Amino acid sequence: MSHLFDAFKRGLEGIIPDDALEKIQKSSKPLKVKFGADPSAPDLHLGHCVVLRKLRSLQDMGHTVQFVVGDFTAMIGDPTGKSETRKPLDEETVAANAKTYQDQIFKVLDKSKTEVVFNSDWLSKLSGKEMIQLSARYTVARMLERDDFTKRFKSNQSISIHEFLYPLLQGYDSVVLESDIELGGTDQTFNLLMGRHLQREYEVGKEQSIITVPILEGVDGVQKMSKSLNNHIGILDTPKDIFGKTMSIPDSMIVSYYSLLTDKSDEDLKALEVNIASGDVNPRYVKSDLAKDLVCMFYTQEDAVAAEEEFKRIFAQGKVPDDMPEVVLGDETHLLTLIVDQGLCASKKEGQRLIQQGAVSLDNEKVPDFKFSFTPSGEQVIKVGKRKFLKVIAG
Amino acid sequence: MSHLFDAFKRGLEGIIPDDALEKIQKSSKPLKVKFGADPSAPDLHLGHCVVLRKLRSLQDMGHTVQFVVGDFTAMIGDPTGKSETRKPLDEETVAANAKTYQDQIFKVLDKSKTEVVFNSDWLSKLSGKEMIQLSARYTVARMLERDDFTKRFKSNQSISIHEFLYPLLQGYDSVVLESDIELGGTDQTFNLLMGRHLQREYEVGKEQSIITVPILEGVDGVQKMSKSLNNHIGILDTPKDIFGKTMSIPDSMIVSYYSLLTDKSDEDLKALEVNIASGDVNPRYVKSDLAKDLVCMFYTQEDAVAAEEEFKRIFAQGKVPDDMPEVVLGDETHLLTLIVDQGLCASKKEGQRLIQQGAVSLDNEKVPDFKFSFTPSGEQVIKVGKRKFLKVIAG
Repeated sequence: MSHLFDAFKRGLEGIIPDDALEKIQKSSKPLKVKFGADPSAPDLHLGHCVVLRKLRSLQDMGHTVQFVVGDFTAMIGDPTGKSETRKPLDEETVAANAKTYQDQIFKVLDKSKTEVVFNSDWLSKLSGKEMIQLSARYTVARMLERDDFTKRFKSNQSISIHEFLYPLLQGYDSVVLESDIELGGTDQTFNLLMGRHLQREYEVGKEQSIITVPILEGVDGVQKMSKSLNNHIGILDTPKDIFGKTMSIPDSMIVSYYSLLTDKSDEDLKALEVNIASGDVNPRYVKSDLAKDLVCMFYTQEDAVAAEEEFKRIFAQGKVPDDMPEVVLGDETHLLTLIVDQGLCASKKEGQRLIQQGAVSLDNEKVPDFKFSFTPSGEQVIKVGKRKFLKVIAG
Repeated sequence: MSHLFDAFKRGLEGIIPDDALEKIQKSSKPLKVKFGADPSAPDLHLGHCVVLRKLRSLQDMGHTVQFVVGDFTAMIGDPTGKSETRKPLDEETVAANAKTYQDQIFKVLDKSKTEVVFNSDWLSKLSGKEMIQLSARYTVARMLERDDFTKRFKSNQSISIHEFLYPLLQGYDSVVLESDIELGGTDQTFNLLMGRHLQREYEVGKEQSIITVPILEGVDGVQKMSKSLNNHIGILDTPKDIFGKTMSIPDSMIVSYYSLLTDKSDEDLKALEVNIASGDVNPRYVKSDLAKDLVCMFYTQEDAVAAEEEFKRIFAQGKVPDDMPEVVLGDETHLLTLIVDQGLCASKKEGQRLIQQGAVSLDNEKVPDFKFSFTPSGEQVIKVGKRKFLKVIAG
C-alpha cells in the first residue's frame, strides 16, 4: 500500500486541511472521492489524465470515485477561467457529451470502483425556493474574489448573475453526495472549497478534503493544455500522434510530464533531472521513452514500439509514413485551402504562416507562397510541419 | 376626468418613458397598475399613503390596481435601502402581515377596482432551472449599480447572493401580471425598472411605464417616515394621535404634506406657500386644518373636530387628556423602565434623553434623573414629551 500512497501524493499542488493526506492514509474504510466533470468539452486529453491518474491511485488504495457528470450545471456553463459569459448547452448535446466523456475516463479509472452520477438527478429537482436558500449561503464579495470574476469585473466584462450560481450548485453536489474528498486542477480550488463550505453550512457532518493537482502545460510548453489551443495530446489520439506530439515537447518539460503522467519514483525523477542537466543522457532518448509510456497508457506495448519505429523512419530518415490520409482530386486545387479543409493546419492563418516559414512541401518541394495552386497528377504527397502528411491522388 | 388627472399628476417624481402620462390620459381601456407591497412591515403609515392615493386616483379614472403581496419575496426580504442582509420571515408571519396590510389599504384604495394577488402563487412554482434562466437576464455589475448595493459593497458590508434575486423576482411579477404601469416610491426606481427590463427580455409584448412618488419625510422633518425611526403617523393611529403628531411637524413641511396627502389644487398650494412665507396666516392654524384633513382620511369629520378640541384643551390649557392608558402598580417602580415598557418612549436611551431634557414629569413635577423610582399612591399621571400620558393607579 505504501508505494500506492507515495505515487498518489507525488506532485500534488494543494492540500486542505493540512492533515488531509494523513486521514486518507489512515482511513480504514473506503472514502468517497468526488470528481466533477464538465460535459461541455467532451474530448479528454493528457491534461485531464493528471487528475484521473490520482483518482485511479485512490481507487487502487480501496477508495470509491464519485464521478459527477455536471449535466445540470452544463446548462449554466462553468465560468471558471473564462473571460466571458458562456452560452448554455442544450440537453441533447450535454447527454451526448456525457456519454463520450465516460467512454474515455475508463481508459484510466477502475470502472468497478467508480460511481457515475449525473447532477441533474438532484439539481433538476431543486425548487426556486431551495435555490434562493442555497444562494443565501455565500456573499457577493467573496464570490467576486474568485480570480476570473475579479478580472472580468475590474475590466468591465459582463458577468451574468446566473454565473454566480454555478459554484454554488457544483458545491451543493458535495452536500448531496456526502463526499469525503474532492479532487481537481488548481484552477478549481475556489469551486472545491465551495463544496467544503456548503457541507458545513448544510451540516452534513463532515467537511470534504480538497486536493488539487497542477495544470499540465500543452506540448508548446507555454500554455495550459487545451483542445482549443491545439497544444493537446488527446486520449483518443492514435499511437502515432501521441508519440509524435510527445517528441515535440520542449526538453524543459520532460521531467514535469514524467512526474504528472507516469509512475516514475521520486528518486528516478531526481536522477533524470540531474542526467539531463549534466548532458549524461540525450533528451531525445528520454523523450522517446516517455512517448512510449504515454502510448502505453491507452494502447499496448506493441503499439508503442510500432509508433516509435514509424517516427524514426520518418524523422531520422526523412521518409514518408506507411499510411497517411488520402484525398482524390481532379481539378486545379488551391493548396492552402486544401490543407485547411483536410485538417493539416488549424486555420487559414496558421497555414499561411507555415507556408511562409517554408514548412509546407509538395513532393519534397517547398510551397513558394500561399496563393500556390496545382493540378493533381498521379500520387503526390503534401507535408505540413514535421509530422502531417496528405496523399493527393489524381482522379 | 380632467381634475382627476390633474390630481394624479401632482407631485410625481419620476416618469418613464417621457410620454407615460400622455398614454394614461389617452387610454380608452382600463390599464393594469401594479403596486408591490412588502408584507414584512405590515403597519402602514402616511408615507405609504402617498402612493396609495395616486393609485386611488388611477382607480377613479377607471384603471385597475394589481396589488401584489410579496409573500414569496418576503422570504428573501427586500434589501432596498438596507445596510445589511435581512433575516427572511417565516410563512406564518408573512401570511399574518399580508392580512393586516390588506385591512389597511382599503382605507385608501377602491376595493372594487383592486385585484389582490400573492406572488407566491407563481414564484413558488418556479423551478430551480427557471430561477437560473431568470438570473441570466441581468449582470452583476448592473445589479451592483443599485445605490444601496454600491454602498454596502464599497464599505465591505456583506451582500448575500440571494439578495440579488429579490429585484429579479419582484420584476418577474410584472412579466406574469402583464402590468401596464408600476408605481412606487423613488427608492423603488431600480426595482420598477427591472420589471420593465424583464418584460422586454421575456417578450411580454409591452413594457410597463414607471411612475414614482417622493418619499414623505417623518414628523421630525429630517428622515424618511418610518415606523422604526418612530417619526411616523400610522394609518391605524387614533384621531388624537394623528392630530397631535401632525401638529408637531416643522412649519417648513406643511406644504409638502398638503401636496402629497390631500387634494389641494396647485393654486391653493401656491397661495398657502405665499401666505405662510409672508406671515399672513399663522402656521399653527394651517397645521390644524391639515391635521383635521389627515384624520378625515381614516375617520369622520366629527372625529377630526373632537381631536382638535382635545388637543386644544391639553396644549392650550395645559390639562391632561380625558382618557389615557392606565396601569395598576403596587411596589416601588423605576420610572424609566416603566415608560419604556409602556411604550411612552421607544427605547431606554430615548427615555434617558427625555428625562435629561426635563421632558418627563410625574404629577407635573419634573423627573430629576433616570435613576428615579417612586412608590405608587392613589392616582398619579406621568407625562412624557408633549403628548404622552400614563395614569398610574396604586393597587
